[in-house]
Amino acid sequence: MAVQRLCLLVFLASVFLCAESKYRVYNTTSGIVPGKLNVHLVPHSHDDVGWLKTIDQYYVGSNTSIQGACVQNVLDSLVPALLADKNRKFIYVEQAFFQRWWRDQSEEVQNIVKKLVSSGQLELINGGMCMHDEATAHYIDMIDQTTLGHRFIKEEFNVTPRIGWQIDPFGHSAVQAYLLGAEVGFDSLFFARIDYQDRTKRKNEKSLEVIWRGSKSLASSAQIFAGAFPENYEPPSNFYYEVNDDSTDSPIVQDDINLFDYNVPQRVNEFIAAAVSQANITRTNHIMWTMGTDFKYQYAHTWFRQMDKFIHYVNQDGRVNALYSTPSIYTDAKYASKESWPIKTDDFFPYADRVNAYWTGYFTSRPALKGYVRAMSAYYLAARQLEYFKGRSKLGPNTDSLADALAIVQHHDAVTGTEKQHVANDYAKRLSIGYTEAEKVVAASLACIADSTSKIGSSNPQTKFQQCPLLNISYCPPSEVDFSNGKNLVIVVYNSLGWMREDVIRIPVINENVVVRDSKGKEIESQLLPLLNVSVAIRNYHVTAYLGKHPRARPSYWLAFSATVPPLGFSTYIVSYTKRAAATSERQTEYKSESNQNDTIEVGPGNLKLIYTGKEGKLTQYINSRSLVKESVQQSYSFYSADDGRVDLQASGAYIFRPNGTHPIKSVGKVTVLRGPLLDEVHQRINPWIYQVTRVYKVKEHAEVEFTIGPIPKDDGIGKEIVTQITTDLKSNKKFYTDSSGRDFIERVRDYRKDWNLEVNQPIAGNYYPINLGTYIKDDSTELSVLVDRSVGGASIVDGQLELMLHRRLVADDSRGVGEALNETVCIHNECTGLTIVGKYYLRIDPSGEGAKWRRSFGQEIYSPFLLAFTEQDGDDWTKSHIPTFSGMDPSYVLPDNVAIITLQELENGKVLLRLAHLYEIGEDKDLSVMSSVELKKVFPKKKIKKVTEMSLSANQGRTEMEKKRLVWKVEGSSKEPKVLRGGPVDAVKLVVELAPMEIRTFVVEFNGKRTTTKG
Amino acid sequence: MAVQRLCLLVFLASVFLCAESKYRVYNTTSGIVPGKLNVHLVPHSHDDVGWLKTIDQYYVGSNTSIQGACVQNVLDSLVPALLADKNRKFIYVEQAFFQRWWRDQSEEVQNIVKKLVSSGQLELINGGMCMHDEATAHYIDMIDQTTLGHRFIKEEFNVTPRIGWQIDPFGHSAVQAYLLGAEVGFDSLFFARIDYQDRTKRKNEKSLEVIWRGSKSLASSAQIFAGAFPENYEPPSNFYYEVNDDSTDSPIVQDDINLFDYNVPQRVNEFIAAAVSQANITRTNHIMWTMGTDFKYQYAHTWFRQMDKFIHYVNQDGRVNALYSTPSIYTDAKYASKESWPIKTDDFFPYADRVNAYWTGYFTSRPALKGYVRAMSAYYLAARQLEYFKGRSKLGPNTDSLADALAIVQHHDAVTGTEKQHVANDYAKRLSIGYTEAEKVVAASLACIADSTSKIGSSNPQTKFQQCPLLNISYCPPSEVDFSNGKNLVIVVYNSLGWMREDVIRIPVINENVVVRDSKGKEIESQLLPLLNVSVAIRNYHVTAYLGKHPRARPSYWLAFSATVPPLGFSTYIVSYTKRAAATSERQTEYKSESNQNDTIEVGPGNLKLIYTGKEGKLTQYINSRSLVKESVQQSYSFYSADDGRVDLQASGAYIFRPNGTHPIKSVGKVTVLRGPLLDEVHQRINPWIYQVTRVYKVKEHAEVEFTIGPIPKDDGIGKEIVTQITTDLKSNKKFYTDSSGRDFIERVRDYRKDWNLEVNQPIAGNYYPINLGTYIKDDSTELSVLVDRSVGGASIVDGQLELMLHRRLVADDSRGVGEALNETVCIHNECTGLTIVGKYYLRIDPSGEGAKWRRSFGQEIYSPFLLAFTEQDGDDWTKSHIPTFSGMDPSYVLPDNVAIITLQELENGKVLLRLAHLYEIGEDKDLSVMSSVELKKVFPKKKIKKVTEMSLSANQGRTEMEKKRLVWKVEGSSKEPKVLRGGPVDAVKLVVELAPMEIRTFVVEFNGKRTTTKG
Repeated sequence: MAVQRLCLLVFLASVFLCAESKYRVYNTTSGIVPGKLNVHLVPHSHDDVGWLKTIDQYYVGSNTSIQGACVQNVLDSLVPALLADKNRKFIYVEQAFFQRWWRDQSEEVQNIVKKLVSSGQLELINGGMCMHDEATAHYIDMIDQTTLGHRFIKEEFNVTPRIGWQIDPFGHSAVQAYLLGAEVGFDSLFFARIDYQDRTKRKNEKSLEVIWRGSKSLASSAQIFAGAFPENYEPPSNFYYEVNDDSTDSPIVQDDINLFDYNVPQRVNEFIAAAVSQANITRTNHIMWTMGTDFKYQYAHTWFRQMDKFIHYVNQDGRVNALYSTPSIYTDAKYASKESWPIKTDDFFPYADRVNAYWTGYFTSRPALKGYVRAMSAYYLAARQLEYFKGRSKLGPNTDSLADALAIVQHHDAVTGTEKQHVANDYAKRLSIGYTEAEKVVAASLACIADSTSKIGSSNPQTKFQQCPLLNISYCPPSEVDFSNGKNLVIVVYNSLGWMREDVIRIPVINENVVVRDSKGKEIESQLLPLLNVSVAIRNYHVTAYLGKHPRARPSYWLAFSATVPPLGFSTYIVSYTKRAAATSERQTEYKSESNQNDTIEVGPGNLKLIYTGKEGKLTQYINSRSLVKESVQQSYSFYSADDGRVDLQASGAYIFRPNGTHPIKSVGKVTVLRGPLLDEVHQRINPWIYQVTRVYKVKEHAEVEFTIGPIPKDDGIGKEIVTQITTDLKSNKKFYTDSSGRDFIERVRDYRKDWNLEVNQPIAGNYYPINLGTYIKDDSTELSVLVDRSVGGASIVDGQLELMLHRRLVADDSRGVGEALNETVCIHNECTGLTIVGKYYLRIDPSGEGAKWRRSFGQEIYSPFLLAFTEQDGDDWTKSHIPTFSGMDPSYVLPDNVAIITLQELENGKVLLRLAHLYEIGEDKDLSVMSSVELKKVFPKKKIKKVTEMSLSANQGRTEMEKKRLVWKVEGSSKEPKVLRGGPVDAVKLVVELAPMEIRTFVVEFNGKRTTTKG
Repeated sequence: MAVQRLCLLVFLASVFLCAESKYRVYNTTSGIVPGKLNVHLVPHSHDDVGWLKTIDQYYVGSNTSIQGACVQNVLDSLVPALLADKNRKFIYVEQAFFQRWWRDQSEEVQNIVKKLVSSGQLELINGGMCMHDEATAHYIDMIDQTTLGHRFIKEEFNVTPRIGWQIDPFGHSAVQAYLLGAEVGFDSLFFARIDYQDRTKRKNEKSLEVIWRGSKSLASSAQIFAGAFPENYEPPSNFYYEVNDDSTDSPIVQDDINLFDYNVPQRVNEFIAAAVSQANITRTNHIMWTMGTDFKYQYAHTWFRQMDKFIHYVNQDGRVNALYSTPSIYTDAKYASKESWPIKTDDFFPYADRVNAYWTGYFTSRPALKGYVRAMSAYYLAARQLEYFKGRSKLGPNTDSLADALAIVQHHDAVTGTEKQHVANDYAKRLSIGYTEAEKVVAASLACIADSTSKIGSSNPQTKFQQCPLLNISYCPPSEVDFSNGKNLVIVVYNSLGWMREDVIRIPVINENVVVRDSKGKEIESQLLPLLNVSVAIRNYHVTAYLGKHPRARPSYWLAFSATVPPLGFSTYIVSYTKRAAATSERQTEYKSESNQNDTIEVGPGNLKLIYTGKEGKLTQYINSRSLVKESVQQSYSFYSADDGRVDLQASGAYIFRPNGTHPIKSVGKVTVLRGPLLDEVHQRINPWIYQVTRVYKVKEHAEVEFTIGPIPKDDGIGKEIVTQITTDLKSNKKFYTDSSGRDFIERVRDYRKDWNLEVNQPIAGNYYPINLGTYIKDDSTELSVLVDRSVGGASIVDGQLELMLHRRLVADDSRGVGEALNETVCIHNECTGLTIVGKYYLRIDPSGEGAKWRRSFGQEIYSPFLLAFTEQDGDDWTKSHIPTFSGMDPSYVLPDNVAIITLQELENGKVLLRLAHLYEIGEDKDLSVMSSVELKKVFPKKKIKKVTEMSLSANQGRTEMEKKRLVWKVEGSSKEPKVLRGGPVDAVKLVVELAPMEIRTFVVEFNGKRTTTKG
């Protein structure tokens, strides 16, 4: 074992590292010099957590024909480089990589690195697992992935990252600034990508650095010092020193007079010129140079060698002061300057890096992956609750693997859809592996609870629950069985929300002789909907493609019934054989529109009626008999032909949306209506590759639109971006509203930017915004709201209309590095066809000012659908031997309508992490945009709470401690700031948590009596 | 000074380097395992001493847009990598880089590296300043550059390199094998580039590894174990691990089971498969893998990390044995195997790497650079002699800078002409700088000696000698003066040969009233040759281009006179004003041929007459009235149109000669003849861009042909390769002879290879060979010899004819990496025209068997022309106040006709390095191919020799010691080897050195009485 025996010898290596040069020793001791222009050199490497290569390929450095990048090299070579000179500094950002590396290091190395971190030479900033996207990532996922990184950093190094470092995401969200910035305790937030027009103006006005108030509701209480870089996150041109890289031609500092090309004076002059030029667009005498870029410092020595020289010779020159720095040091210097800063509100979307290059395509790119991420996010939330109920197992199965996969996929080249196909596959594979393990946790926990009255006892539950991750394509083996032999299907329906909730569930069944009973054995209303051929074809094709086998059974119906479930709990439903065909459910008549028909079709068994023309099957009216809304409405599809870049080399691609023509899709006009007691369905074949089902439920006042899009044809060589429009007569006056990372709604104005005088060159792409929760328009009387099941791009291109981009299939690359056309396929035995996606959006029209309730509460239901678990029961009465209904909260208690539990999780140390989120902004709803409160004792009814500690959002420090450290910035032209509403401290006895609008509060809860955590 | 203060802290870094992985420690202890196939992993970096970037750019890593390469990185990162595991090994080759790095290291680092060298972890092999070329480098230059490196290694590390490592040169010379291999004490010689047909055969016969006897004369006494690699000098495909390199896709060994893509079993299998495949073409159970290639190990860690894993896992598998090794260890293992090896004689030229790709263009590429190198080589030889006479100054001026420049330019992408233009410029600049310093040494030494009788004394000489490096373009300011004002021109003519010597000198003068007197004041015969317009135009253009100023004077004549100079000494000639115009010299009548003339023109004032047709001015006959040779001879020019690669992507380029058509150049027929007492000149305008002067001297029996070629036109888009043919009626029967690196002549047979059955696909390019000294053909009665002034390519394409390629100008790149068309230009104010070159070759026809004398002795005179120094004398009688003639040897002594002093140099330690070379091969000349002897006492007449130590050729070890270590290899099918003639030991009293044919003997001579070396 040669390596270890050598350790004693190797200390000799140290002297090697000390001696840059026999004759030249560089003075790098410079700190900040008050009277001078200070050039903060910030050494960094931007390590994408997957993009052209998978995360593991980047880490170990494989798949080199795509890219030489190897993150192991960065960290391996960094440590000796930092040790060689204590003035050298480095920031490391992506915890997913850092943790891979950390696991692999010996204790000695770990101890060295700990010293480097505690001395500030190595600063861990941003600190999430990845540098998450801000357009297509949901705020809950952003919080979770940041927490994972921050808590690791806290545990291993006892430090809290101070800086937001979102240098690559393609535009920046308000939620990032106030929630993932101010609320995690960051002192500043830096980024590079803002609109080129905006940037030009900000340079002229020295307003690249601002105080950003991202939230209308939390305002100055959650503001942050934010800096956009003058260009990008690379060094100024000509100051770039990566090993073995022929992509640039930065002259090294050649200070050996014995060799040719001695260039110290020139290089010093160039350094100073670049510094002065940046100083001219920057307030204060501090400027930052980001010394690195994607996957640099593969051999860290090469950068530090040059920076040592620059610092030495530039400071010898004396005109400016160069120093090794970090964004923290830079931020402190900015703060110390007592400068006043301009205010920035809202966000930095959409992003264009040049004319005709709006990065608004990725809002929709890879809609299937985006959908999968959202589904897994919800599952992870629910699974952690169930894991908590059961008790966390360190050795597994646990939710850690899903946590990790979900964290990684929030990366700005992951959920964005801007990675190469093989990398997208890798993310999906990780989610699938994580899901498979979490599925076991869920099954075990449900079994634990359900079995807890049985003789076996909950600690060794007998029940084996199955789940149906492919239920969305009507594949669910446990329900596709013949019940006539006496077996019953037990369905446990889990509700991860803090409210009691009712929703219609549907499962595929193979025949019509079924009956549904509730926990009490009472037969309940159900409805059988015939499974149409189009659905069966999709089901069979994709089951074969994904599972490698043709499904055995052939379900004939969807069995639908309404389930009611207590908060953080479950109800149980039993499906069994009945001799009466379609017992309480009714086989619905099919209704086909005739082209010569003049009458209308009215759809909807409840308050909401949708009116279609009989002739063309076109939606024309939305009528709510309760709210008295009666609104003309059309719904249509069209596609944009994607520019292929032939004219000016800017194609539409994974990042960029660049349409060169709008092509309405005329529906083929065939409509099938299925009616029943629970819901009506309108089936429409829009064209050969778009199919749509519109559902109107008896007890819901919105329409649910399920679209099936694909394979988008590309035989004509033209990329296509598929959109749907919902058109009303609302006088929306150019305004529409889209959510910020699934949370605050921001007003958008067509062809207009608040921060600068917009030059409109892309009237469609330049008006697109990311949508995670939903979008709406309004006029004096009415609001039209649309909610989505995953992140998509959307716009309001004409007044009264909302548009969503649902799918994209392209033939060209958009020249932003990914090097592939976004052309997703699905394959069986290497026979591939364009990817078909199935998704949903939800549509509702309300009287003006009344839409928020639905957007917020039903939005939360979309995010957190019921979790279904199935098991088989042999004759025996399930409810007698099992617990059929359960709530984790006090049975008398539900959360207020404006509050959601967004985290309930047992930590490794046995404590519980709880996050409560107020769902409303100020002024959003007359009843619910108010201070609310949650009684913790009732959330944890069976336990004695010992201690509740309010934490920063990422739970890596006490909230009090964090607030104490918060920097108070001077704002330009500000007088007194209005008081912001915030919940007060939690009384240790009462244990009631107040939540002001848009507030999210994070707690670590400790209980009396040691929790017995399952050990394996 | 932060860097130094940290040294104490940095020992911590050591532990970092020890721990590749927390969980995985690699066992790399494996040595050779007898029963198994041993895979010797030889980590190396091939660092071209200039190619696409200059040497200094490669060293410091600048000019990155061309190539990221940085040699500093290689060595910087290597040391910690070797320290991290004592089993790891590395070979370093190019001393020019190593010494740059070494100078820059602290003593601590130097001590560490010394330990690494003495432990064998770091082995310095080959050890010259560069990996010299073998086709276009002269053996004296090869020896000098190797000596420079070897002596440095000896001094700093007390080791002698054991291995020849010529892995990249484009074919391999006999001289490399026996002289720069066996005679420097190497145990083996490895290389990669041999003809693809040869390689195929050798693989089949397992004869890639041979015993190479390069010299007919020295035969088995100078043989070496030589190995050609199976493919190239890279690792087997898929075992390549450079940092940040996306040029290949070798999978790393992914042995972390926690990450995706774990691949240990696959990689082990692939390793073993590659090893077995190589074993199948290799004798013994030892194979070598060259783990590296051009400029790799920029971050050495990346390679060692993977090799550690391979050694660990492959040996764990056990089917083969992998080990860290060096070529020395490999050679010892081969030797220990007691295997017999096939014999190889002659050389490995020409080299083709595939069909139609003969690397025979570079034999001529950049003829001006090649000419400059040869001129500087001679100058360096003479300057060292003069430096020795004066006493070496460590602080300068000295010849070190020229030594260094000359050493570097022997690199296989330097003198070869295969570098980028800017790099060629860099080499020329270095030579020029070196020359400028050496010029001072020469001037000072001559002044020392010449002034030594004057009152001032030699230690502070007053005479300022000027020299005329641009004399070849008739530019010599000291001679271009008006002597009518009483100033005389003193010309000191130095002869660096060991023989008394007479030669005609020419200098430009501005008027005809000049007279030449010898040292004794006696007026001697001189001849004025009018400076024709064509020469003046070239002179003025190039002086302006090179010196940035138009020459002031306008010389009218060449003044020619014959100088006679003692060995290692000088004579002095005085040029002064005379009233008689053209005193003893005569203005020659010009003779212009008329196209209707039918009579012939006879040229030549002495024994040799050349006969030209009067009508076309064509050479027809060569008549020597002494030797009675009378031979029909024609001389002509043609060009090959260069293939531009359009058909099969193989163009003619810097490396490769690929003609696609032969185009005879019809002379325009204008002939001017200048006649005089010393010489006749025939001036011929061959075409608008070829001008030729043929000189026949009274006292010489050869013709001197001076050609001026260029600018070669390329407006037609066609590259052109210009050749001259000398055509006789000799029945040469396909055979011709070319020298090996300027030394042994090797028989060449057209369209034939001794070692394999040649498939002829390039009947011209495939018959080209490198020529450094000369070439000849013969038949039963006659020999035609041609000698050259620089290295060129040559062939005998038809019987009786010799052909030389003199210049090339191309329009395409030949796809071997240089990435430029060989299109040399010369520019004034950015107006560029194709480069014009001026050169000479020499032509003689002898009775059969009598040519060697001229080839050898006049060949030596071509290599070592007179060195001229000029000074002005004001009226005073120079000879009275100065020493007018001088010889460094005993006045009664000259060297034997078959011996040359190829090195006479004072070493840094005050001792003297002396190399004596026998100039003849066995059987080459009936009188001179015999044992010869040199009396050292007479070579050093004024000193008492204390000790003479015979050394290895590179003077880094005693010859006895070297011979003692020599490995005695078993040769296939050999019986008793014939005895080889070698000079005996030198008697310490007699001090007579015997030299057998082709022997070169190297001595370090120590004198009694400490030499006072000038200190500054």
